[in-house]
Formats: sequence, C-alpha cells, structure tokens
Amino acid sequence: MLLAPLSRSVVHKASRALLVTRCQFSITCCCRAPELARGSYSKVTGVDLAHFRSIVGNNMLTDTTDMQPYNTDWLRTRQGKSAVVLRPHTTQQVCQILEYCNDRNLAVVPQGGNTGLVGGSNPVFDEIIVSVSLMNKIISLDEAAGILTCEAGCVLESLDAMLSDKGLVMPLDLASKGSCQIGGNVSTNAGGIRFIRYGSLHGSVLGIKAVLADGSILDCLSPHRKNNTGYDLKQLFIGAEGTLGVITEVAIAVPPKPKAINVALVSIESFDKAKQIVVKAKSMLSEILSAIELMDDESVEMVVKQLNLVNPLKRSPFYMLIETSGSDYDHDKQKLHTFIESVFNDEILIDGTVASSIKEMKSIWKIREEISNALMIDGRNFLHFDLSLSLSNYYRIVDDLRNKLPACTALGFGHIGDGNLHLTITSDSEIDINSYVLEWTKRHGGSISAEHGLGFDKCQYIYHSQSQKAVSLMSNIKKLFDPKGILNPYKTLPL
Amino acid sequence: MLLAPLSRSVVHKASRALLVTRCQFSITCCCRAPELARGSYSKVTGVDLAHFRSIVGNNMLTDTTDMQPYNTDWLRTRQGKSAVVLRPHTTQQVCQILEYCNDRNLAVVPQGGNTGLVGGSNPVFDEIIVSVSLMNKIISLDEAAGILTCEAGCVLESLDAMLSDKGLVMPLDLASKGSCQIGGNVSTNAGGIRFIRYGSLHGSVLGIKAVLADGSILDCLSPHRKNNTGYDLKQLFIGAEGTLGVITEVAIAVPPKPKAINVALVSIESFDKAKQIVVKAKSMLSEILSAIELMDDESVEMVVKQLNLVNPLKRSPFYMLIETSGSDYDHDKQKLHTFIESVFNDEILIDGTVASSIKEMKSIWKIREEISNALMIDGRNFLHFDLSLSLSNYYRIVDDLRNKLPACTALGFGHIGDGNLHLTITSDSEIDINSYVLEWTKRHGGSISAEHGLGFDKCQYIYHSQSQKAVSLMSNIKKLFDPKGILNPYKTLPL
Repeated sequence: MLLAPLSRSVVHKASRALLVTRCQFSITCCCRAPELARGSYSKVTGVDLAHFRSIVGNNMLTDTTDMQPYNTDWLRTRQGKSAVVLRPHTTQQVCQILEYCNDRNLAVVPQGGNTGLVGGSNPVFDEIIVSVSLMNKIISLDEAAGILTCEAGCVLESLDAMLSDKGLVMPLDLASKGSCQIGGNVSTNAGGIRFIRYGSLHGSVLGIKAVLADGSILDCLSPHRKNNTGYDLKQLFIGAEGTLGVITEVAIAVPPKPKAINVALVSIESFDKAKQIVVKAKSMLSEILSAIELMDDESVEMVVKQLNLVNPLKRSPFYMLIETSGSDYDHDKQKLHTFIESVFNDEILIDGTVASSIKEMKSIWKIREEISNALMIDGRNFLHFDLSLSLSNYYRIVDDLRNKLPACTALGFGHIGDGNLHLTITSDSEIDINSYVLEWTKRHGGSISAEHGLGFDKCQYIYHSQSQKAVSLMSNIKKLFDPKGILNPYKTLPL
Repeated sequence: MLLAPLSRSVVHKASRALLVTRCQFSITCCCRAPELARGSYSKVTGVDLAHFRSIVGNNMLTDTTDMQPYNTDWLRTRQGKSAVVLRPHTTQQVCQILEYCNDRNLAVVPQGGNTGLVGGSNPVFDEIIVSVSLMNKIISLDEAAGILTCEAGCVLESLDAMLSDKGLVMPLDLASKGSCQIGGNVSTNAGGIRFIRYGSLHGSVLGIKAVLADGSILDCLSPHRKNNTGYDLKQLFIGAEGTLGVITEVAIAVPPKPKAINVALVSIESFDKAKQIVVKAKSMLSEILSAIELMDDESVEMVVKQLNLVNPLKRSPFYMLIETSGSDYDHDKQKLHTFIESVFNDEILIDGTVASSIKEMKSIWKIREEISNALMIDGRNFLHFDLSLSLSNYYRIVDDLRNKLPACTALGFGHIGDGNLHLTITSDSEIDINSYVLEWTKRHGGSISAEHGLGFDKCQYIYHSQSQKAVSLMSNIKKLFDPKGILNPYKTLPL
C-alpha cells in the first residue's frame, strides 16, 4: 500500500491569512528596547537605485505597497522601512549588489520566504532587501546518490514535490513549507517535524555557495557526503541568519521517500508517562519513528474550542502524536500496533487510536498543527517560546509557570522527541513573563532557541545559552566575514 | 532474535601487529617534500619539564622508548622527535599546559588514540605531545533522550560496550574502534561503516568543550539536539585535526541499538550493475540499510590469496556487501530477501548469499575488512587514497589507472553508499601515481579526502578540493583561534 505524504502547506496558508487580519493587535514579542539606534550606514540615493537597476533590471521594487510583504515579518509584528527590494536572478548579480553596498556602506537584509518567527529576515530600519526568490532553479539531482543541488530561492514544498516523483524526499518539513525557501531554511538551520528521523541540517547540507559582504563568492558547494579537506566553513552559515553572507546555492542529501506512513494519537495521564512513551517509542519503533509530538490538555482544548476540531479521545492531561514512516506498510503497522499494545499493557497510556485512512491521519495532525492558529483566534496577547530542555525539565517549566503565574494560560506542546518545547503563554497581566521563562531556561541548562533562531527578537538574550567566550569568538568571525557589518545588522549577535 | 553487533576491533589489532613488523619497508605515503623547515618555536628546557611536572605530576613521559608509540604514527611511516608526552587528567590541566606553551611559544600536538592515517596526530619535529588518553570518564548519559556526554579520551569501543547495556549504540563504527578515542574521532570527523545509517558527526555531535591555544576554555557542550543560538562554533572543531583547540569533552546523540542485523554478499558482472544495486538497496531497504560496501575482484583475490579467506561466491568482477540493522529480525530478513530476489530477477546480480549465523556474518565482513591487511602481507609498496567521487566516476578512476599504468595493481573498494572509494595501488615503478590520482580527482570534482582528513600528508593538496577563497578564510580562522600557531603545526592547512 502506498500512501501519499501529508501536505501541511494548506494549514500554513490558512494560518497566514488569519495572521494578516488579526496579529497586529494580538501578539506580543520577546522584543528589545525600542530605543535601538540605526547604525551609521549610508542612505539609499537615486544614484544607488539607478545602479541597482543596471544590475537587476526591472527586478526591483520601490513602491511602498509592493514592498510591504518584504518590509514586514511573517507575524506582522515588525515593520521595516526599506526603500528598495532587489530580486537578483543569479549569484553574479548578488555579487555585484553586495560589492556595491559594501563600498557604499549600505546595510542589507537577505530574505528568502520571510517566514521566520524571530524577526530575522526583514529590515529593522531601512536596510536594502535582497530577496533570493527568483533564484529558484534546480542545478542538478543525482538520483542514485540522493544529492540535490539547487538555488537558494527554491520553495521547500516545490522541492519535495519534484523529489517525490523520483522516489526521494527532502530531509526537512515545516508548517511553512509552501512559502519558505531552502536558502532561508539553511540560514536559519530550520528544524521541523522530520528532524527526529533525518537529523539536523548540519548533517544533511553537503555544500553551499554564498556571496560574502564584499561581493566575493565562497564556493563550498561540494556535492559529496564526505569531504574532510580543512575546516567545514559551510557549517558557519547554517544558522547564521544571513549575517555572514548570502547563501545562493545549496547541495543537500535527500533520502528515499518512505512508502508507508502510519499515525497514532494516544492519551496519557501524566508527563512522567509521556517520558516513558518517548523511551519506548524510540526503542520499539526505532528506525521507522518519524515524529513524536506532545500536546497538553490546554493546547488540545484551545484547538477544540476555537476551531471546532474533534478530539477523537476522551479528554486527558496529555496527548501524544506518533508517526512512523517506512518502506513496508504491513511491517510498520505491525510494529506500531505492537508498540501501542505494549504501552497499553504496561498501563502507560489511557487510550489510543491509529489512523486507518489518510483523512484520519490529516485530522490527527491538524490537532497538533492548528494550536498556534487557535491561539490567534483566542485573541489574547500571547508570548511564544521555542525552548530546548532535557526531558526531566521539559514540562516542569509549564507547571512552574502555572504555579507562579496562575492568571496566565500556559500551553505546552512540541517536538518532545527532540527535547523541543513550544511554550505559549496568554496573559493580560503586566508580569514580565519573558524574563521569567528565559531565566528559568538558563538556570536549567536549556537553550532559549531550539529551532527558530535569535534573529532580531532574541539576539540580546544570546548569553542565556552561550558563554562570553563563545559570543566573543562569534563576533570576531562576523568581523572576519563582514568587516563593515553591512549584512543583516541588529540580528543574531548582541549589539 | 537478538544478534550481537560485530566486533571489528580484533581485526584491527591483528592489522596493527602486522604493521609494526612490516610497514617500515612496505608503505609509500602521499608525503610532502622532506625539506620542510621546523617552525620558529621554542625548544623544551628543563625548566619547562619541571613546570609540566607541577601540572600533571607523574603523568608525563620523557624516556625515548616510552614515547615511541606517541612519536610514531599508526602506519609507522612518520617519526617525530618530541621530548615530552603530557597526559593530563582534567580540562583544567590542559588549560594550564596550553597557557604555558602559548606564553613560551612551544608547539603542541594533541593526540587521542593515534590511529589516524594521514600523519595528523604525531609530531613532525619536536612538538610537545598532549595525550588525552587519561581523560576517559563518562560525564552523563541521558538514556531517555539518547545523549552521551564524556571526556575526549574515551575509547570508541568502550563507549559502544557501555551503551550496548542500555540499548543504545554509538553513531559511528571504525576498524580502529578498539584504540581510537572519541575526541580524535570528532577532531578528524571520522566516517566509517555506520555513516550511511547515522550520517556525519556534524549532525551527531551536539556539543564540545575545547581548550584554545591561549589556555582559555570554549564551552559549547550543549546537550541538546537543537540549539539555534548564534554561530555553531563546535562545527569548526569537527575535522579541524586539533589545529584550533584541544577537544576535552564531547556530547553526542546516541541512537537506539538495532535488535537485528542481517548481512548479504552478492556478486556482479559490471560496475554499472553495482550502481543499480546502490539505487535499489537505498529504495527497497531504506530505513534498515546500514552498510553497502563495494569490492572489486582484485581486492577480494588479494584477501583470498594472502590470508586464505574463503570467497563464498563464484569469482566475478565485483562484489557487494549489504548489511541491514533494524528493530525486527523477521521483517528485516524478509525485506533483504525480497531485495535480493528483485535484483536477481532483474538480472542485476550474478549470485548472492545471505548469512545465516553470526559466524557467517563475520566471515563476510572479514573479506571486506582484511583487504588492507592482505596488502601489507603482499609486501609491495602501495599508495592508499580515500576519495569522494560521484557514482558515475566512482570506479572510472580505477579503470583509467589500469589503462594508463598497466604495470600497477589497482584495488578499488570502499563505502560505495557514501561515494567513498578506498583506492589502493601497488607499484614498483617510479611513476608519480600520487599526482595522477589527485589531479584526476580534482578534474572530476571529487574530494581528495573523504574521511581520513588532510593531516600532515595531504595538507599541501587542499587546493585540489577547496578554493583559494575558502583556504584563505580557513587561515584567518586559524589565526583567530591560535594567533601564534602553536597547535598542531604543519597540519591541515598548507604552509
């Protein structure tokens, strides 16, 4: 039996539409002091615009309305004031743009699908936007080796669709797959729901080509799985949020497409039981495990209430979504049933259901993926955190928050298999929840950004998860790659 | 059915014994001109030794015989002349040593198990050897999350044995596992036979603690699978061969231990058919595929002739070893049989056998792993290359060599699933095989070092696989981390 992979882009598009209409009044960001001063960069002049036109022709925007989607972030909480959006078609054009900007001391923000959640891909002031959206060609696909080389502007979902026809799959999948681009994915070291199966982009990305601040090309576009020839420079660009260079091409390992997908939803009475599920699932489902997601009762109730979705199980304190992807449907189904039976017999779970159709699978996934959307409809201010915590601390932060701040509504859900919690707190109070959560995370040895990055919103908090020595070395590396600091200023590193 | 993992350390130890007695006259290295001059470092004095003794006590060696295994490389082709081996017990001691050496301008070579194959871990002149062998403690093991944190001197096989009891496994396995150490594995970005299953150390290593040249500590020992807080500095140390700092602690993701292992050996009439096997195996065996190794007839004949091993199949131009590792023995066996049947029906293979016992599995693996050993017994000079090539070029280099240099014996074998060829050439002629192979690899877009690194032997050839721009940036990063260049001089980067 061959099952089509679930498309999550539909969900994403719906979410985005909601965000456009609602978020201007409903989201609170972990943002920094408003008194941030513009850096001493030059301002764009008519001469500059004429020069840019000589490079990209008509592929530039200067009309305020046209530029609006580029000037604003995905959550619509940031509003930049760039005077120009440049949409180069080639790496060479990016070189010409950056060489000129560097000479003129013009600040630049590289942009992909602009779907980031930490304000990393849109201008803070009037930085020139260099969008790689038009650089969306497939350069090569080595089907036998499973290696794709493409331009940075390729949309993740399009790549996945193209690979699907060849029996291959992208090693990452995000809710924003219909808009996000591979260059941005690499620049933000995107995680997502296939992480537990295919691991980090630090392992999957084989090579990149990037244009540095001075317009020179750094070609590390090795299409090999192994290449131990000196320092692995491309790794620095994975997660650097465009502050070290503009990624224009990417080589990435693409695994065989799973032929069978199975999805189960189980309910559990305590977080301790959830931990047991994680351990048992990893051990029993092992190589076919492709997702373990946790949702607490508050998260599921939010979806049920705001979006009228049906929870197929009796209400309980926790739920877990377990997905398997493998090469044999019957084998995988048998493994999943054996697993469910085992955790049921051990009295680890209260109840469970295994999807028997694609429709049922989608319904189960929808409960997990619509949580953020339901929060938007709920309409109260909310703060969203993306934390890495050890399993023993994973849910303790939610319990502590509820004890400490009973007036708040705290929702805990996320990629529990990777130790990644998406903690969301709705509150109308003036209490500094942001500091409380980030301090708590620091004190418990967690990471304040698991997969979203630091961008503009969180760069001042870098010391919560990195040492002075590490940040100092990062700053020196930044100076090495971008001496004038023209690339994506005010992001990633503290000011 | 539960199968024990194959131990390859026995093979390794036997190989090493042979090397000690034979290699001084049988190996030719890809080495550089002998006129290399010693850098302008200070020489070790009695005062220095007294100071070192105040740091490490009796854990230092100064006797020439005692130091011999540290001064020589694993292949016994290099002979350093260090005056002292320091064996610190703690990161703090490493700090004190490096701070002193940096102040005194004394060169240092960090050393783990000293099992590298490119002369990267032993002194070229009189560099002080800092061995991390005594730093072999487990710091923590998060069994639920599958995250191990340990000191750099832990031997790979010991870690694997410890994890095995907990139902976990190291994500890498090498022939030298009985001697090599995790700090060295990370510093050399070791590949090995589990690479196709668990990927690169760039994905598996979650954190490191390293001592920099000036004695300061860079603590990037995050134990989280996801941590997007700034540039991922640890990545620079993975494969830096100790030239940027001495890794003293490592956090690494450890997957669940497979419960079932199956091994098949098949024979094929052409390399084109071998490529088809790779594609079909990846697609059909997918998530349980844990090794695909290629051996040509010359490689297998060398083993049969020199070591009296039995080839269970009729002699043919190529052989492939295929291993699966999964969580269900019957499922995996069925998948493997279906695969073998399919490639047999499609007339892709000539013959094949599936091991029906651990003894048979070991016999099949032994054919693959004893090739280098058989070459040592053969006794002629040989050159060994570790190349990454696209599948279309993977074996073309062997054919081209045989056409170009008919007097040579060229053996082609390796990790074909990763595009990694271990090409070995025995020749008594004066022809410059080294230049021919490296130039060929460069011309065909390959990497001159897939998994062994550059070390001392190959650092001058870095431009064959890296651009001027990339090497220039690497040199600047080296200067940033180690301004005086005291760490592992004459290695990795060109002089």
